[in-house]
Amino acid sequence: MNAQIESGNIPQAMAALGQAARAAADGLAMSGEEQRNLALRECAAAIREQSAIILAANEKDLESGRARGLTTALLDRLALDASRVEAMAVGLETVCDLPDPLNRVLAEWDRPNGLVIQRVSVPLGVIGIIYESRPNVTADAAALCLKSGNAVILRGGSESYHSSQAIYTCLTDGLKSAGVNPAAVQMVPTTDRAAVGYLLSSMTEYLDVVVPRGGKSLIQRVQQEARVPVIGHLEGICHVYLHESADVAMASAIVLNAKMRRTGICGAAETLLVDRSAAEALLPEVCTALTNAGCEIRGDKFVQQLVPAAIAATDEDWSTEYLDAIISVRVVDDLNAASEHIRQFGSGHTECIVADKAEAAEEFFRKVDSAILLHNASTQFADGGEFGMGAEIGIATGRIHARGPVGAEQLTSYKYVVRGSGQTRP
Amino acid sequence: MNAQIESGNIPQAMAALGQAARAAADGLAMSGEEQRNLALRECAAAIREQSAIILAANEKDLESGRARGLTTALLDRLALDASRVEAMAVGLETVCDLPDPLNRVLAEWDRPNGLVIQRVSVPLGVIGIIYESRPNVTADAAALCLKSGNAVILRGGSESYHSSQAIYTCLTDGLKSAGVNPAAVQMVPTTDRAAVGYLLSSMTEYLDVVVPRGGKSLIQRVQQEARVPVIGHLEGICHVYLHESADVAMASAIVLNAKMRRTGICGAAETLLVDRSAAEALLPEVCTALTNAGCEIRGDKFVQQLVPAAIAATDEDWSTEYLDAIISVRVVDDLNAASEHIRQFGSGHTECIVADKAEAAEEFFRKVDSAILLHNASTQFADGGEFGMGAEIGIATGRIHARGPVGAEQLTSYKYVVRGSGQTRP
Repeated sequence: MNAQIESGNIPQAMAALGQAARAAADGLAMSGEEQRNLALRECAAAIREQSAIILAANEKDLESGRARGLTTALLDRLALDASRVEAMAVGLETVCDLPDPLNRVLAEWDRPNGLVIQRVSVPLGVIGIIYESRPNVTADAAALCLKSGNAVILRGGSESYHSSQAIYTCLTDGLKSAGVNPAAVQMVPTTDRAAVGYLLSSMTEYLDVVVPRGGKSLIQRVQQEARVPVIGHLEGICHVYLHESADVAMASAIVLNAKMRRTGICGAAETLLVDRSAAEALLPEVCTALTNAGCEIRGDKFVQQLVPAAIAATDEDWSTEYLDAIISVRVVDDLNAASEHIRQFGSGHTECIVADKAEAAEEFFRKVDSAILLHNASTQFADGGEFGMGAEIGIATGRIHARGPVGAEQLTSYKYVVRGSGQTRP
Repeated sequence: MNAQIESGNIPQAMAALGQAARAAADGLAMSGEEQRNLALRECAAAIREQSAIILAANEKDLESGRARGLTTALLDRLALDASRVEAMAVGLETVCDLPDPLNRVLAEWDRPNGLVIQRVSVPLGVIGIIYESRPNVTADAAALCLKSGNAVILRGGSESYHSSQAIYTCLTDGLKSAGVNPAAVQMVPTTDRAAVGYLLSSMTEYLDVVVPRGGKSLIQRVQQEARVPVIGHLEGICHVYLHESADVAMASAIVLNAKMRRTGICGAAETLLVDRSAAEALLPEVCTALTNAGCEIRGDKFVQQLVPAAIAATDEDWSTEYLDAIISVRVVDDLNAASEHIRQFGSGHTECIVADKAEAAEEFFRKVDSAILLHNASTQFADGGEFGMGAEIGIATGRIHARGPVGAEQLTSYKYVVRGSGQTRP
């Protein structure tokens, strides 16, 4: 395990990471699929072999977390057990089994002068990933970067430092076993927050993109300080909109799942919108399902009349990502008003319309501009795995480069390859 | 024509532009192809009708340019005549005739649970374009943004201010004639450089991306100050590499064209690399063609021995974008050394290999990672029009979002549309 670097040495240490990553990226860009896949399998094997070491490191993190008074929710995110370690190894193998995202011919066409133009996928280069408490992100993020031929510099949360370092050691061992430059996956060897600032602002030479994964304060810091391109991940203020044509049983099932299956993920619903004309028919049953499951309901006046359990929503509720068993509920005049509400208060992540009329769904798809729009399906499907991408680094809510689940394919760029026979330009 | 705003009013004036652009973008995102195409044709018509007004405004810019002592090259970039105005109108019509880049289903797949997932192209939103002396960029950039359903805020160079304003008036008239919100195309109404700073740093709420077009100082300013995502355009230090299998006649023709067809464009070759084993056979003829065309040759020692006209190249030459009738020439050991030179000194723009052996070209394509790689064709084909994209905003040298020529298709993002039948996530 790396010794932590002193804060005075951060610039040198980070530049050294950057140089090593750039060299590793150059090697990976020319590596074959077999070698990258072998590395992923060797990393999985190392994680299984060193499971006890990982769990011991995790116990150390948990102890200091309890001593620092971390919440139960945070401690739960941080905690590993044998099955969570096994899940990390399986995750690496799942990514290994994905189709190669590199060297794909994305488009090809001829020109009248005989030039043949191909657009071919290539790695992004060096990716910086800044994440928070979940130590498994160390393995998941490294796997996606490796699969897509990118070198990665990982910067995990301080509370999971020892767990992440133990996982990182396994990855290094796996890379070496496969004959891949171990600098393909590196970890910032300090919990000093100054290292995050340095990563964001002073490594333009070494980093091609930064992917932040975390809460509001991390994202705001990234937006303030980043000098390198960012694949943005904002909060998920996700909406379920019940159109007047919604079936009440389907509406109940979808709202319950979208809100309560897991309340702490970014694809969890935070606000329910209901057409005024169908509120009386839909809301009592939908809200009973929610309250029976332990969900608090914050509604506008109309909602409070129909749902006795509802307390009053304030203006702030419409732009709050609860990540908890709380939902805000609002009655709207029609689909236009619903899309207007989403435009004003949403974060561009994921929205769902429940409607029997397909035309209503098509109109919703046209009028609402979020990364993921669903008709008659739970917002909790907003997930790279559920999309069939094998895994994800997160759900991008920006509009540049990638939007929605960011998997191995989204961690690529492209180049143009043009084949001629002596053409010069007139 | 807009009155220039006072520098004290820049924040308010820019925020007003931003708000209007956001509203226009919301409208454009839902507009049909017919309306956007009609707007492009109306803009072209307005430019033809107001040709005399544009030329008068251009004369004003040229007068003050001459008074300020602008170089002949800059004055030439700035100058319009009847045929250049007609070319702008034709450019708008060419973009109009491109296929609609919006609402395309980019990918579609089913999930085992019955969900049907589509990835559908959408506009980026609001684009800021910062450019320098060529006034025709006003029309070209607006056309590509409009075609792709984006609102645009244009900020032209101060030396072409009156010309750009006159063209901008035509665009406004054209938009109005087509019933499109004229705020779809706006122009920053001041030559104050503080407005560029504000655009880059304080408009994250209103701008989805900034595209800088210009020289090194602009690009550096953008990299320093930008808080909004950037589609980067660095300089073009483009290389032609003559493999030992190159045909001498083809090599001469390609090098001459790549360097001398137009020396001032970013796709012009700046450095020639030649395999040592073929230097004697290739360089004398290739360099004679160049010197006969008036090109200065700066070579390493080996080159100076073979080419009497060559003066000594310094280390600085290898990383200089001359944009002039000068070429640096270096002898390399082999393809590996050539790709290493390009990695070290290139800007990731465009490189060409001249080789009879196709395997050499394939190896070059694998080992060199620039936006555009050509085999046996001039680097001056690095151009959106030559690629068949109809037009371009520039050649992106970054790795995020778009790489190579940026046309209407590259100015789009996407969203996921998921159709279900009541699915909830287990």
